[in-house]
Amino acid sequence: MTNARRYAPADLATFCIGVFESFGVPHADAETAADVLLFADLRGVDSHGVARMYAYHEMLSAGRINPTPSPSVVRGTPSTATVDGDNGLGLVVGPWANRLAMDKAEAVGSGWVSVCNTNHYGAAGWYVVEALARDLIGWSMTNSTKLVAPHRGAEKMLGTNPIAIAFPGHEEPPIEIDMATCAAAYGKVEIAKRAGGAIPEGWAIDAAGADTTDPGAMMAGGALLPLGSDEEHSGHKGYCLAVMVDVLCAVLSGANWGPFTPPFTLRLAEPERSVGRGIGHFFGALRIDGFVDPDEFKRQIDDLSRTLRATPPRPGHPAVEVPGDQERRARVERERDGVPLVDPVVADLRVVAEATGVALPEAIG
Amino acid sequence: MTNARRYAPADLATFCIGVFESFGVPHADAETAADVLLFADLRGVDSHGVARMYAYHEMLSAGRINPTPSPSVVRGTPSTATVDGDNGLGLVVGPWANRLAMDKAEAVGSGWVSVCNTNHYGAAGWYVVEALARDLIGWSMTNSTKLVAPHRGAEKMLGTNPIAIAFPGHEEPPIEIDMATCAAAYGKVEIAKRAGGAIPEGWAIDAAGADTTDPGAMMAGGALLPLGSDEEHSGHKGYCLAVMVDVLCAVLSGANWGPFTPPFTLRLAEPERSVGRGIGHFFGALRIDGFVDPDEFKRQIDDLSRTLRATPPRPGHPAVEVPGDQERRARVERERDGVPLVDPVVADLRVVAEATGVALPEAIG
Repeated sequence: MTNARRYAPADLATFCIGVFESFGVPHADAETAADVLLFADLRGVDSHGVARMYAYHEMLSAGRINPTPSPSVVRGTPSTATVDGDNGLGLVVGPWANRLAMDKAEAVGSGWVSVCNTNHYGAAGWYVVEALARDLIGWSMTNSTKLVAPHRGAEKMLGTNPIAIAFPGHEEPPIEIDMATCAAAYGKVEIAKRAGGAIPEGWAIDAAGADTTDPGAMMAGGALLPLGSDEEHSGHKGYCLAVMVDVLCAVLSGANWGPFTPPFTLRLAEPERSVGRGIGHFFGALRIDGFVDPDEFKRQIDDLSRTLRATPPRPGHPAVEVPGDQERRARVERERDGVPLVDPVVADLRVVAEATGVALPEAIG
Repeated sequence: MTNARRYAPADLATFCIGVFESFGVPHADAETAADVLLFADLRGVDSHGVARMYAYHEMLSAGRINPTPSPSVVRGTPSTATVDGDNGLGLVVGPWANRLAMDKAEAVGSGWVSVCNTNHYGAAGWYVVEALARDLIGWSMTNSTKLVAPHRGAEKMLGTNPIAIAFPGHEEPPIEIDMATCAAAYGKVEIAKRAGGAIPEGWAIDAAGADTTDPGAMMAGGALLPLGSDEEHSGHKGYCLAVMVDVLCAVLSGANWGPFTPPFTLRLAEPERSVGRGIGHFFGALRIDGFVDPDEFKRQIDDLSRTLRATPPRPGHPAVEVPGDQERRARVERERDGVPLVDPVVADLRVVAEATGVALPEAIG
């Protein structure tokens, strides 16, 4: 395993805010962006947190992202809207559009906002947790640059296109769902490559479209497989979900979809054609009291969570959990011990620190 | 393989209408119910079509379903509602609630309806195809009696909880998604058992919670696995989706959820406790012109469909398709040649015909 050092969450947030501000991002926006990133780090979703600062820095340095966007509603109804994100940080445009969905829900029961001309928005789960505080059921999706093959296909055509949704409990913690629609995360393939190990069958194909257990073969022109993996295990279903997310985020908003979704790094070539503006997000909010008494809803969620946790586990398996339990455990541990950053990430952050003049904090362990 | 005979779709519809009417179901409702069933048969979803008439007959005979329900809105906002289905046929209550969601969408941009006190509603896909004719993006979900184990769990706790959504094209056919959230359909396990064959690993567990390739072991107290199957292939994601559907359909509406969802047959025991009324559905509708010009949207869907179909296929695999292509092929073939019904289904329908006095049509092939 790669070495890791621990950093205090507040120190990392201060660093991110400083870096964003060095590009002219307004302070309040920089704070929001840092909050979204730290949310991922604290919950153990390392690929979507501070590790991404290098990419944000790179895109801002190259003038590829607008540090002071003015998002606008380009079309709408009382419960829907399309937002043009003015090519801002997804970490700023996303929260803006998510608030609009929540405001619409408070007005007419539900709100649905599709966003174009935006960029990588962090962890999908941040947005739906925001909705919990307002007694709303939040939905969040985003498309992303191609990494996943369609079912039966030999080439990357779709992003990892995550879906998040959350439901509040009363005494129990909320049910928090945040899942990419592929069989395994790209980060796990990278980790296997660094460790010199193999990946399980069903995760990926090589550049020729053949099954592979070699992480390097996936990374050298291969593709991830959709959730379900293969013909026998319903890989078409993961493909369906990825297409659904792509349409709601990008076709509905006028963003780029499928293989034309721009990458969030300068290292990858731009897509061969443009079919819209930027990438796309989709946010939803449903007022719980538009359906049922919220207290009754939360008590039932408690009952459901307890019922699911009481399922006898399979032999040799840990206990059954409720979606969000694992991330909450990570949060407790990381708030106490700090966020671990592996050496390659620390090296990236040093580059960012030198380029921007914002000091990288000292590790605490 | 079991023998099958072909029946004319119109003859089967007439049979279904007659059976429903024999229980006092009003003619218009019986026509709707038959239309939902034949939709499944024509698209090759044999498990959700006329083959279910035995169960509907059984439940109606036992007085377990109200043949003349008066569905009502028990709570709502301009864009949301909870409907009490008055314990009617899901095939009647579902279309009623789906229309309400569509009407709300036309009024304020989107409509979301959660339904309690209802029963099996046929194929989830029927509802979202209805929305296409009104330039709406339709969503449809239902919960169902327990058949699927939670991730890491040794017992059935959740239904196969399908998700359907559809997007219209301009020159291309619509993208139509209709997928259960488990790794494989129960019907495929039954078919393997009848054929004396094995099922792939990753589909099911036995009564002790161990992996099994024996379809009989799954059927004798085992469970299906969620989409993703196991730890390595993200079985937790299929579990997340099943929980999401359960909450939206049942917790939100006040229906029974999880292991307490009543079975749609008299052969299975009633759940050990009741946490709501009947089963639950969830319908949504989004006005496309609430986001984007519908013609532009449809042209982009055409482009997306053509782009996906043009993906080079994996070696040894058929061409990449768009969700709905397979069902459309089945429909062309079955409208031409008739709906195949296997002998056990024909035997069931003969029982229904004798009990109700409604003549079973002659096979056409």
